Amino acid sequence: MADKKIEFSHHISRQFDQELEEVRTNVLKMGGLVEQQLDLAMKALTQGDSDLGEQVARDDYKVNSLEVAIDEECSRILAKRSPTASDLRFVVTVIKTITDLERIGDEAEKIGYLAAGLAMAKQPKNRYREIRNLGSHVKQMVHSSLNAFARLDADEAFEVAKRDVEVDEHYESILRQLITFMMEDPRTIRPLLSVMWVARALERIGDHAKNICEYVIYLAHGKDVRHIGMQSHASLAEVERKLDELD
Amino acid sequence: MADKKIEFSHHISRQFDQELEEVRTNVLKMGGLVEQQLDLAMKALTQGDSDLGEQVARDDYKVNSLEVAIDEECSRILAKRSPTASDLRFVVTVIKTITDLERIGDEAEKIGYLAAGLAMAKQPKNRYREIRNLGSHVKQMVHSSLNAFARLDADEAFEVAKRDVEVDEHYESILRQLITFMMEDPRTIRPLLSVMWVARALERIGDHAKNICEYVIYLAHGKDVRHIGMQSHASLAEVERKLDELD
Repeated sequence: MADKKIEFSHHISRQFDQELEEVRTNVLKMGGLVEQQLDLAMKALTQGDSDLGEQVARDDYKVNSLEVAIDEECSRILAKRSPTASDLRFVVTVIKTITDLERIGDEAEKIGYLAAGLAMAKQPKNRYREIRNLGSHVKQMVHSSLNAFARLDADEAFEVAKRDVEVDEHYESILRQLITFMMEDPRTIRPLLSVMWVARALERIGDHAKNICEYVIYLAHGKDVRHIGMQSHASLAEVERKLDELD
Repeated sequence: MADKKIEFSHHISRQFDQELEEVRTNVLKMGGLVEQQLDLAMKALTQGDSDLGEQVARDDYKVNSLEVAIDEECSRILAKRSPTASDLRFVVTVIKTITDLERIGDEAEKIGYLAAGLAMAKQPKNRYREIRNLGSHVKQMVHSSLNAFARLDADEAFEVAKRDVEVDEHYESILRQLITFMMEDPRTIRPLLSVMWVARALERIGDHAKNICEYVIYLAHGKDVRHIGMQSHASLAEVERKLDELD
């Protein structure tokens, strides 16, 4: 694929440039907060720190406030500036991106609650090794998707979106392992279900990171690449072919 | 609360009126398709019909195509008409609503797959009674949220959004019941986990219906009511008070 970094047209109104730049900065600020929430939620889980888990859950309102503020700013820009072409696509991309960031925040909140509950249950630490690995993988995806957004880099976005397949496979494998543990010792069902919900939340965060990447690709190409099959390895060549056709 | 039905300003351009009306019709068409998918997925589950379950999963692409088409139409309207005030809020509401409808479609697809798997497992029919009830409840919520959207009726939207609390409670009770079954007989863990994922999917569909209602309230009031606490019975009076203050 050719280089897909795009640049904003230079506006006659410097004020408008500044407004768009501010929106971009705020999305990255919201992204940073969401990354931090995810980081702390995983720390609460692996260190068995119930206070920290509850703190993460309580702090979700900060993510929500940022979403509402950015959303209102976007509506204001649409109404006042009537942006067209790549500026319009950028604003629509932001409206969608912050929805996914907010949902990543919700999943981090859930992990926080689950971690607080699990801290009481005295689970052996090593059982979280796989969850920790999945967590690192997903955190990396979120970080890279925000990088792709920051630089409007469709190539990077495409590489990140592809990694969601590995996250899904990793999640499935953890699921199978947990089911085996449960069947071996039914007394572990309850706590292990909490571990399963954590794995599920991480898997969903991977989906949201992939969504953000797809918006970035849409922004760069001006075409919607969702739903044309980013799901399986088999169809990746197909997606790449379709993206090339779009150029 | 005062009557919150709003009407579109009459446009000098009849063409523009028609475009907005067409978007509205297409959203309702997409909603109808999503309702049908959910209906068939639940039928596949309760009748143990694996072919029907797989059919539902395969048909999800129809929901996705409609989402992409409506999304592109909205972007076109934003670029060409530069709508303001209530028209602009309507278009932004549509962009958000179809995202949630698409995710309801994804959950129906998941239920379809799970139903196909469970059809092989020969589960006793009566075990799905509670799931069926939850399914009916959630289907009703989706239907009413689309009605509220169709008539831009914030009062109905508010009533529907409140019902999500009951769905969450129902879901939690099913979860507890399933855990008890699993602990009684660990051989049932694997199939009962599938039943649990179905319940989880239904609970998430309730969330999406609530999201749609919140967009309708936003559209009518011009203010964002998300994140000001629609979660618990305790805070409903608070939300009602805040909504009244917004008038």
